[in-house]
Amino acid sequence: EAPAAAPAACPAAPTVAACAASGLTEFVGVCEFGNTQGLVIANLDQAIHEIMGFDKKYRSLGIIGARTGAGPQIMAADEAIKATNTEILKVELPRDTQGGAGHGSLIVFGAEDVSDARRAVEVTLDNLPKFFGDVYANDMGHLELQYTARASKCLTTVFGAPEGKAFGLILGAPAVIGMLMIDAAVKSADVDVLDYGSPAHGTSFSNEVFITVSGDSGAVRQAIIAGREVGKPLLAAWGQDCPSAHIPYI
Amino acid sequence: EAPAAAPAACPAAPTVAACAASGLTEFVGVCEFGNTQGLVIANLDQAIHEIMGFDKKYRSLGIIGARTGAGPQIMAADEAIKATNTEILKVELPRDTQGGAGHGSLIVFGAEDVSDARRAVEVTLDNLPKFFGDVYANDMGHLELQYTARASKCLTTVFGAPEGKAFGLILGAPAVIGMLMIDAAVKSADVDVLDYGSPAHGTSFSNEVFITVSGDSGAVRQAIIAGREVGKPLLAAWGQDCPSAHIPYI
Amino acid sequence: EAPAAAPAACPAAPTVAACAASGLTEFVGVCEFGNTQGLVIANLDQAIHEIMGFDKKYRSLGIIGARTGAGPQIMAADEAIKATNTEILKVELPRDTQGGAGHGSLIVFGAEDVSDARRAVEVTLDNLPKFFGDVYANDMGHLELQYTARASKCLTTVFGAPEGKAFGLILGAPAVIGMLMIDAAVKSADVDVLDYGSPAHGTSFSNEVFITVSGDSGAVRQAIIAGREVGKPLLAAWGQDCPSAHIPYI
Repeated sequence: EAPAAAPAACPAAPTVAACAASGLTEFVGVCEFGNTQGLVIANLDQAIHEIMGFDKKYRSLGIIGARTGAGPQIMAADEAIKATNTEILKVELPRDTQGGAGHGSLIVFGAEDVSDARRAVEVTLDNLPKFFGDVYANDMGHLELQYTARASKCLTTVFGAPEGKAFGLILGAPAVIGMLMIDAAVKSADVDVLDYGSPAHGTSFSNEVFITVSGDSGAVRQAIIAGREVGKPLLAAWGQDCPSAHIPYI
Repeated sequence: EAPAAAPAACPAAPTVAACAASGLTEFVGVCEFGNTQGLVIANLDQAIHEIMGFDKKYRSLGIIGARTGAGPQIMAADEAIKATNTEILKVELPRDTQGGAGHGSLIVFGAEDVSDARRAVEVTLDNLPKFFGDVYANDMGHLELQYTARASKCLTTVFGAPEGKAFGLILGAPAVIGMLMIDAAVKSADVDVLDYGSPAHGTSFSNEVFITVSGDSGAVRQAIIAGREVGKPLLAAWGQDCPSAHIPYI
Repeated sequence: EAPAAAPAACPAAPTVAACAASGLTEFVGVCEFGNTQGLVIANLDQAIHEIMGFDKKYRSLGIIGARTGAGPQIMAADEAIKATNTEILKVELPRDTQGGAGHGSLIVFGAEDVSDARRAVEVTLDNLPKFFGDVYANDMGHLELQYTARASKCLTTVFGAPEGKAFGLILGAPAVIGMLMIDAAVKSADVDVLDYGSPAHGTSFSNEVFITVSGDSGAVRQAIIAGREVGKPLLAAWGQDCPSAHIPYI
């Protein structure tokens, strides 16, 4: 969740090596945002179904994984759930050392048909750059803001977001910054706080504090913007600006 | 807990950006030791009180957070508890990637009055450089030794230290080094071992082994010094010296 | 588990500092692979026995610890268990920031006699380079493959491997890559899947997916090789080759 530099659009023009990987029928693509990769498995082996506890009706998997970033990938996967006939089977948040103060991610879609699984991975990769737009990072940490007017099943699974309602994420790292951001956010607008994360609660020990909020679309946006406004000067307080990783969308 | 270089005194002369942040009334200061930041919230929103489970009588919060270091911040916060009318509401230890083999930190003070909360943050930041004095680090890991003649409520909360008694921390990273340090420490003096930490016990999976000890002031100091003496050559065994991050105080 | 460059043979020619450390009778050696260090404690203090819950009949400890790598150290320790009169008392997996997407390690051997403990540490360090041979790494992650024709008590303790039978580890990081590797592995050969690891299951939140397998020696090797073959192009898909950290042995 902390890319310091804004990479090129995603999916990137494939390198020679990426072309080699695409010789594997399971390879869907890579994205420089968060060093994300997407794969598909047409017919998962029964032994893997069993140890991982996946319902066997989902014989095809779509898989998204990243070194850096969980929020953007989860948001993009939520768009994919809306657009395809798939379900979320697993969302896990590694504490990856490439991710600065935040998480990496592993997201598994289940589908009865491999074309659905592949489509879910493609939609996720296509939407990923957008959701790095309100990630602001420097060497000291990062802010992450996310917004959707209509949450779907990925956000329900991960954050308990009410389906179909506006949803927002307000996050600061290091954690001290997040504490002020979440207070400013809830003071600014009438939103429902769904849950919070901190180093020892709802994270994999990442150095982040965040809340997830739901409610009226305008209120959710207002809370997010209020959090962002106090977070920026705090993250810059050690002396570095904190630019957007891509193009702000909120 | 692993700053490789000794930064300037803390609070640092504020940069332009820090000045900008201090335009926020909640901003108290930053410290280059551990990339630590201190904030205050005068009147925490009730929704945040509720999700985080804070007693509502503490309407004001003082907040300390760092990318690198938990021990020094905890020791400094213990001095702040002695000096102010505040309580410790939360101490969490992120597994931050800027921290080498060790932790970052998030410490929350609760107060009924915002001036007390602010004072606690200021005292913590003022005392922080001292407690980096017996942190010895190189690219391979770090040693951390801490001592106080009189433990207060922050050390009681985090480590179960008997209040008012001498307290010591003997820690080595990577964990293999800590194993020998703690054995040497308890062999050298008659101290009570309060608890230990290891990658899978009492840490957030950090690569550290430590013990906390209590007892007679002279014995506690002797145990700490014995641990330090065996730790230094082991940390230097890959070929780098391990200088103090500031000025040794034990 | 992710050394980007192949270091020299291990134990390395000792540096001046390592010579200084070897002035400590407890120091056994360091290895550049994984920044691993080995120590011995002839007569562990009873207070440490008690807090760590070690059986007191093991008065001597051999200790291996590393910043980077758990699999290679565990495999090498398994060789040491076969060769010495020692037991495994502790295997812990720190989430060390030097380890890229994977773990560091802390392994404790117990022995009734210090010469056995020392020998276990020496055998582990001697065998360590071999087990970095099928670690393939670049800036994006790593693959780890391990094989033994005959598992011993270290592998039993850590992975539940049936003692005396062939054992294999198939691991990819970031986790997305491991998902395809484990599916390819079990499809290629008739092996028993013992367990799996993922960021939230059986790891310390590392960005890895792996399975451990047991069975006929030829089948185990075939599964490992099948996993390796799909892992390499996926890890190279961001544009970097992923060379072996040493000399492949499988």
